[in-house]
Amino acid sequence: MNEFEFIKNIKKKYSLDLVGDDCAVLPKDASTDLLISTDMLVEDIDFRLDWTTPELLGRKALAVSLSDVAAMGGSPVWALLSIGIPEALWSGRFLDRFYDGWHELANRHGVKLVGGDISRTPNKLVIDSTVGGSVPTGAAVLRSGARAGDSIYVTGPLGGAAAGLRLLNEGLRFDQSASDPRMNLLAKQLTPTARVELGPRLGDSKAVTSMIDLSDGISSDLAHICRASNVGAVISVNDIPFEGEVMSIAGSVDAMLDFALNGGEDFELLFTGPQEKLSLLNFDDIFRIGEITETVGVVELERDSKREVLPPGGYRHF
Amino acid sequence: MNEFEFIKNIKKKYSLDLVGDDCAVLPKDASTDLLISTDMLVEDIDFRLDWTTPELLGRKALAVSLSDVAAMGGSPVWALLSIGIPEALWSGRFLDRFYDGWHELANRHGVKLVGGDISRTPNKLVIDSTVGGSVPTGAAVLRSGARAGDSIYVTGPLGGAAAGLRLLNEGLRFDQSASDPRMNLLAKQLTPTARVELGPRLGDSKAVTSMIDLSDGISSDLAHICRASNVGAVISVNDIPFEGEVMSIAGSVDAMLDFALNGGEDFELLFTGPQEKLSLLNFDDIFRIGEITETVGVVELERDSKREVLPPGGYRHF
Repeated sequence: MNEFEFIKNIKKKYSLDLVGDDCAVLPKDASTDLLISTDMLVEDIDFRLDWTTPELLGRKALAVSLSDVAAMGGSPVWALLSIGIPEALWSGRFLDRFYDGWHELANRHGVKLVGGDISRTPNKLVIDSTVGGSVPTGAAVLRSGARAGDSIYVTGPLGGAAAGLRLLNEGLRFDQSASDPRMNLLAKQLTPTARVELGPRLGDSKAVTSMIDLSDGISSDLAHICRASNVGAVISVNDIPFEGEVMSIAGSVDAMLDFALNGGEDFELLFTGPQEKLSLLNFDDIFRIGEITETVGVVELERDSKREVLPPGGYRHF
Repeated sequence: MNEFEFIKNIKKKYSLDLVGDDCAVLPKDASTDLLISTDMLVEDIDFRLDWTTPELLGRKALAVSLSDVAAMGGSPVWALLSIGIPEALWSGRFLDRFYDGWHELANRHGVKLVGGDISRTPNKLVIDSTVGGSVPTGAAVLRSGARAGDSIYVTGPLGGAAAGLRLLNEGLRFDQSASDPRMNLLAKQLTPTARVELGPRLGDSKAVTSMIDLSDGISSDLAHICRASNVGAVISVNDIPFEGEVMSIAGSVDAMLDFALNGGEDFELLFTGPQEKLSLLNFDDIFRIGEITETVGVVELERDSKREVLPPGGYRHF
């Protein structure tokens, strides 16, 4: 059983009807719903300290939760930060630098730290990041609204984070001042950009029927939308936008596709909606990559006019 | 630098005016404020798996956050649960039993699980528990409202959790069916009761000027109130209520006092207010233990008509 199956089970067992989207949606006041999302990042599982800097890690810890709020069409408002930290890191400047990076991004988006907790751990760093956001009442974009015939879009080029991960595994280290074009790919992995402004604009357009952020890769994240919406999907290989430099790292089209489809962590938004509406809205930098179908639960990949089933791939904790 | 000093520093550095009470207080709607609290529990730091059961741990993970909401005079409404879990625990029934214990307590108080995260960890279990609650607008009981002349109260007998911790350290293990009266002390440590109903009743009374939950022990928690309220305090040793059996475990009055003053984790509420108002309200099971003074920042202990300064003690992560 992987973590997605486990969550499905407890959702059923305890009737957790608010679990299952990027954020929980709770009524706030007459005109606003509250969005809440939480993400745990564990050293040597989700990040490695020798690959990043405290500042970049602080930014990423916040960015992954900002991305969840954006994926509901909402705007972030406040945050909680719980940190479990080993003695050795506590005694240095690590945490000061981590909070500097965190606040640099938080301030840019007007997000306020309202609480948290600090605990010691036996050896590994653990971060739990929670963000609260707001969205007009009833306007949160769920995973469950996709309809057959809707087009499928992403908000930016893909595969960069997975290519960056491969480079890190191969020993390349991030250096902001280096002119090496591969640094852009490391940055995609180490300090991803959440679509904080674009998410609410897409939600406000009323043309978006479902949305999710690409944390696990298209193959898994689109499957989440298809399951929640009771539909299927077909993706056209030729329409997937790739991050520059990805091909040279991947070495083959198949490897490049694997980065985009199963790599995850690009934190672009994946959304659906009627093409005729969306094309009128003149969004820059949205890419149509496929279409929602009636073949319930099946995601297909179209390549050279042939279709094959795309199984959910990407990282699983278990 | 310990964790309290660190939090004071970042609070100042980043102007975090909503950090510093048991919960953050955020405006919800015209009549209600939202309370939010988060607590991280780390294996072998905050709990040991061979001392407890998955069910009891699930209950404690929720109870510590329920207690924070109660300490603001609020009622819990929803919760998030992030869990970092090692492979070995994942493959067994641990998590099912943990969620059973968690939900048993959550259902008792009408608290709904709305989200969370699951991650793998290299070896230790980590739990981050977040609870959202509600309180009438402006009615949250802060740490900052104590005034010289107020009486100081606790909501129940103390020292039980610390005595239970000593017994666990000495090798005694919890067995619900055993008639050993010491099991009551182990239960105080392993499955503490949050004052979920009493907290809001105290808040609603309008007679309470400040409140905190006893997670660190009187010496530290009362010092938090004194610092926030710009006052001092004196506690009378003879008025402190002790959990039954604590004396026989402690072995001396000083050791027993140390359990109550520095032991922590009793999760009773410590609050202040004018005695003349509170005595009219006929609260059962509240114990007057001292008085707020004008000696700013100083907590004193009165014993045999002599006063001595009581320094903040109890567990520090760093």
